[in-house]
Amino acid sequence: METQGKVITCRAAVAWGAGEALVMEDVKVDPPQRLEVRLRILFTSICHTDLSAWKGENEAQQAYPRILGHEAAGIVESVGEGVEDMKAGDHVLPIFTGECGDCRVCKRDGANLCERFRVDPMKKVMVGDGKTRFFTSKDNKPIYHFLNTSTFSEYTVVDSACVVKVDPRFPLEKMSLLSCGVSTVGAAWNVADIQPGSTVAIFGLGAVGLAVAEGARAKGASKIIGIDVNPNKFPLGREAGISEFINPKESDKTVHERVMEITEGGVEYSFECAGRIEALREAFLSTNSGVGVTVLLGVHASPQLLPIHPMELFQGRSITASVFGGLKPKTQLPLLFTQCLQGQLNLDLFISHQLPFSDINEAMQLLHQGKALRCLLRL
Amino acid sequence: METQGKVITCRAAVAWGAGEALVMEDVKVDPPQRLEVRLRILFTSICHTDLSAWKGENEAQQAYPRILGHEAAGIVESVGEGVEDMKAGDHVLPIFTGECGDCRVCKRDGANLCERFRVDPMKKVMVGDGKTRFFTSKDNKPIYHFLNTSTFSEYTVVDSACVVKVDPRFPLEKMSLLSCGVSTVGAAWNVADIQPGSTVAIFGLGAVGLAVAEGARAKGASKIIGIDVNPNKFPLGREAGISEFINPKESDKTVHERVMEITEGGVEYSFECAGRIEALREAFLSTNSGVGVTVLLGVHASPQLLPIHPMELFQGRSITASVFGGLKPKTQLPLLFTQCLQGQLNLDLFISHQLPFSDINEAMQLLHQGKALRCLLRL
Ligand SMILES: [Zn+2]
Ligand SMILES: [Zn+2]
Ligand SMILES: [Zn+2]
Ligand SMILES: [Zn+2]
Repeated sequence: METQGKVITCRAAVAWGAGEALVMEDVKVDPPQRLEVRLRILFTSICHTDLSAWKGENEAQQAYPRILGHEAAGIVESVGEGVEDMKAGDHVLPIFTGECGDCRVCKRDGANLCERFRVDPMKKVMVGDGKTRFFTSKDNKPIYHFLNTSTFSEYTVVDSACVVKVDPRFPLEKMSLLSCGVSTVGAAWNVADIQPGSTVAIFGLGAVGLAVAEGARAKGASKIIGIDVNPNKFPLGREAGISEFINPKESDKTVHERVMEITEGGVEYSFECAGRIEALREAFLSTNSGVGVTVLLGVHASPQLLPIHPMELFQGRSITASVFGGLKPKTQLPLLFTQCLQGQLNLDLFISHQLPFSDINEAMQLLHQGKALRCLLRL
Repeated sequence: METQGKVITCRAAVAWGAGEALVMEDVKVDPPQRLEVRLRILFTSICHTDLSAWKGENEAQQAYPRILGHEAAGIVESVGEGVEDMKAGDHVLPIFTGECGDCRVCKRDGANLCERFRVDPMKKVMVGDGKTRFFTSKDNKPIYHFLNTSTFSEYTVVDSACVVKVDPRFPLEKMSLLSCGVSTVGAAWNVADIQPGSTVAIFGLGAVGLAVAEGARAKGASKIIGIDVNPNKFPLGREAGISEFINPKESDKTVHERVMEITEGGVEYSFECAGRIEALREAFLSTNSGVGVTVLLGVHASPQLLPIHPMELFQGRSITASVFGGLKPKTQLPLLFTQCLQGQLNLDLFISHQLPFSDINEAMQLLHQGKALRCLLRL
């Protein structure tokens, strides 16, 4: 490895300010420190969390210059001291929420927010030394990290706790989708544990909602209802297994009234993937009073309270949220790879566009304007 | 059975208006209809839900005249047509939330709000024919039922789905506590599934909170923190297994800050048994971010929203509620009887007073003034 232990200069898309076009430029990437890994990113796509950070929607989380990006796949270039579970050449996914394997959370079944490497939108430097591994090539200015990953760069340095190995026989470009958007299928399988024959309502038919639909279909759901204000999303929804559609704009009835009509008393599971507070309440009320479970997947930026009365939790409806589909990345993601390969999930559905890395600003706009589901960038 | 099939005239405590003293008077009790059972009540106590209905706190739920009461034990006097799982002479508990055994909810593990006989504070007549089985002795005026049970009467008629048999070797007067207040121990065992060595915080140290404490101790919790503004409740709390106490009035720090100090990062389980919205938020924040579970047990009468931001559900803390400890009454309560007899739960702790039935208004005041935990009335 001629690059091992040396600084690598490569191309990266750097964010210099809220809402400003990313600048494709040369950056220097330091070698990985203890328990870190340097990756050659081969594919990255863009998810709404990148868009939100790019727009600077949450001021407290702003940090510039910064390299965004967290849905990606690549190859290990070199590993730092103490890294034993991977080596140069391994196919991997960087994951925005890690698994140290050793903390109170990692040791517990059913929990996945590792105490040391959990997703943290405020974090902008490495855990080990509180510094960055990226610098501008021109004047050596530090460039901040993002979501433990920073994949809008040909090379990136991440904690080894935030890297999952992929069997080299699996297609990396598709597997990259499992590093964020499509991992939410885990919410249908783990968090909600959808049973065969049950009914499901999905609010918001972006990548997250469609992943839930595919997961529900794979589990044998008898009826999958998709809700979105944009009927252009319905054809793809049908391919993902959605059997009935509701456009909230098309009726005077509330969505939950219409779900009740279609299902005789409400669905067993509802998923809020729209990130809208009104959708959250409709999702809650669409479930069966007695057995209903609502899973919160959408990101709600505005500081509102849950639109639920405490007593409503006594009516046989529960609400829960999930990050990364409730999966422990290192322990549980590999099973998802296998299930995809077995055809239980159709990943092709999610790749609506493909562009070279240099067109990243165009790709951001495609997602921003709701035209792309996932635009895969090749680095 | 000389009374079988006949109207029985007996003593009952009748509520004639919001907050008015109950009137001890003769009432006529009709024979049980199809799938109903007539019970001779031997013991009843008073719970906060009775107090709330007596005060008429929720106007929509008011109905007079009415026979309140739902925590009780008795003997089957006679059964209606089609009742096969019990007979005259059986020892039983009437239960305010039933189990038909046949609906979507009853057939599902982990759910207990039977579609046909679930607790319903609006309900005031029998399900079978929409009529009452109680009438004033003087002028035959119908008297409304309460919470499927109406136990402030020597005789009552209930749906057989709302009756659980008790082994006659078990002491009925103590078992009566399991028909409501102490059943919440199920929240510690079923809903939260407390693991040995874990830490617990209990907000509100009335009967419900103490039942949770006993349940947590029986499960081997390493630390049980009790929170109450009334330090007079601490000695009994210690008997129930609580190891540390917090009086919110005694410090400038918030309760969750103090819980964090005591537990290094928060408890695994918190229980809101106070029915106060501020306590609910403190209970939520007192749990460990990563594995924390908050169980809502207190009744929140005021129409406020859950004081939780949707994004807070993504921080590894969940919230759930439970009615009747999450137990299916017919299927799961008998196991609790056995566990009590084995000494896993100390029921004596909960009986602070005993009075004859005729002193029911005094018993109501004892609870209302916070002087009684449970006052057992003998009929
Ligand atoms: Zn993402
Ligand atoms: Zn960990
Ligand atoms: Zn039922
Ligand atoms: Zn009660």
